[in-house]
Amino acid sequence: MRGKLIVFEGVEGSGKTTQLQRCSQWLEASGLLLRLGAVGTRRQIVATREPGGTSLGIGLRKLLLEAGIHSTPQPIEDRAELLMYAADRAQHVEELLNPQLELGAIILCDRYTDSTVAYQGYGRGLDLKLIEQLNQIATGGLESDLTLWLDIEAEIGLKRARQRGSADRMEQADLAFHQRVQQGFAQLAASYPQRIVRIDASQSEDVVHGAIQEILSQRFREWGLGNG
Amino acid sequence: MRGKLIVFEGVEGSGKTTQLQRCSQWLEASGLLLRLGAVGTRRQIVATREPGGTSLGIGLRKLLLEAGIHSTPQPIEDRAELLMYAADRAQHVEELLNPQLELGAIILCDRYTDSTVAYQGYGRGLDLKLIEQLNQIATGGLESDLTLWLDIEAEIGLKRARQRGSADRMEQADLAFHQRVQQGFAQLAASYPQRIVRIDASQSEDVVHGAIQEILSQRFREWGLGNG
Repeated sequence: MRGKLIVFEGVEGSGKTTQLQRCSQWLEASGLLLRLGAVGTRRQIVATREPGGTSLGIGLRKLLLEAGIHSTPQPIEDRAELLMYAADRAQHVEELLNPQLELGAIILCDRYTDSTVAYQGYGRGLDLKLIEQLNQIATGGLESDLTLWLDIEAEIGLKRARQRGSADRMEQADLAFHQRVQQGFAQLAASYPQRIVRIDASQSEDVVHGAIQEILSQRFREWGLGNG
Repeated sequence: MRGKLIVFEGVEGSGKTTQLQRCSQWLEASGLLLRLGAVGTRRQIVATREPGGTSLGIGLRKLLLEAGIHSTPQPIEDRAELLMYAADRAQHVEELLNPQLELGAIILCDRYTDSTVAYQGYGRGLDLKLIEQLNQIATGGLESDLTLWLDIEAEIGLKRARQRGSADRMEQADLAFHQRVQQGFAQLAASYPQRIVRIDASQSEDVVHGAIQEILSQRFREWGLGNG
């Protein structure tokens, strides 16, 4: 009955957001799966993101991504940034993720705890134990059921992201920073092989989407959610 | 040479903000003190507050005090609120407090770590160890040199605050909440008698100001900062 939390992770320009939308459309359209027990009600597909998955989070996201560029002249300090991501997450978990999981929803979430480890830990060099502590405080222990890591070289990803248009604060950070972030994701994938599945995101959008369909179809069968 | 951090604490309507301003004016005008070592340069008097002592903090303060009233329809979850106060504090400590203390400033700060213990710990009932942990993360260990607790009954304070006009989110909380906050301050004052000095804030504004002048004059002498 309980739903599943599926997270999309990766560096800037890895295609997370596009792939999450395509995946959501596919799940909505597909007759593949996802009835709620014997009653046969269709499970809700919920697409969300961090930061910014709640109304409070939208305010925090604006402060986080625009600080030092638009509204506020001073750069955000590293620990303040970390605590703001944690605040966004705490609100997201309590207001949206936990209630939706209880209703049986399949949640597709753009970034979650691994991004904090990769960006603030590996990227900014903040203490990894501190980050783990804050992730624990923010989530109350809620982990993803499956994390899709869209793996792409930081340089290629950044080039893609910059072609999209105006860069936010994260996209403006230098290449070395994004390379450390990318190493962080690689390290996490090695540490949690069951939870994190790597997908080669240098392939075409269609090929990546196909890979995601295949992985999810298999997981849904394993979880007893599929009908195929 | 190093400056001093002097914090004003108390429930809504205790007169903190008014007293801080009067104290700041008095210190500016007074010939009492505060030369920087042998050079004789006057120490800077810095008036600031939490939340909202930095440009980032102003954005956070707006989200914190207006959520559920104006911009965002959903109430802030307790842990998200706690993490946002911690983020505001981390930015404040790094961007303003530590640099100004290094320059020798006398900082007057409207609320600091004790407010978080009183409001989120005693008021909201969040775990006190968790709050201590977050205060430590946010401050990097920076404690106030002196905390002036303006002690007033929660009921009288709230009545005063409401007479001022439109109530923010904290002022809208019920009396029982503010009574727990008040108990929190009393508990803190009992636990840290050296750092926290109680002032009877039910007295007239002038009497309270006089008491603050007396306490500060004595502390400045003890700290070797006075010239009297």
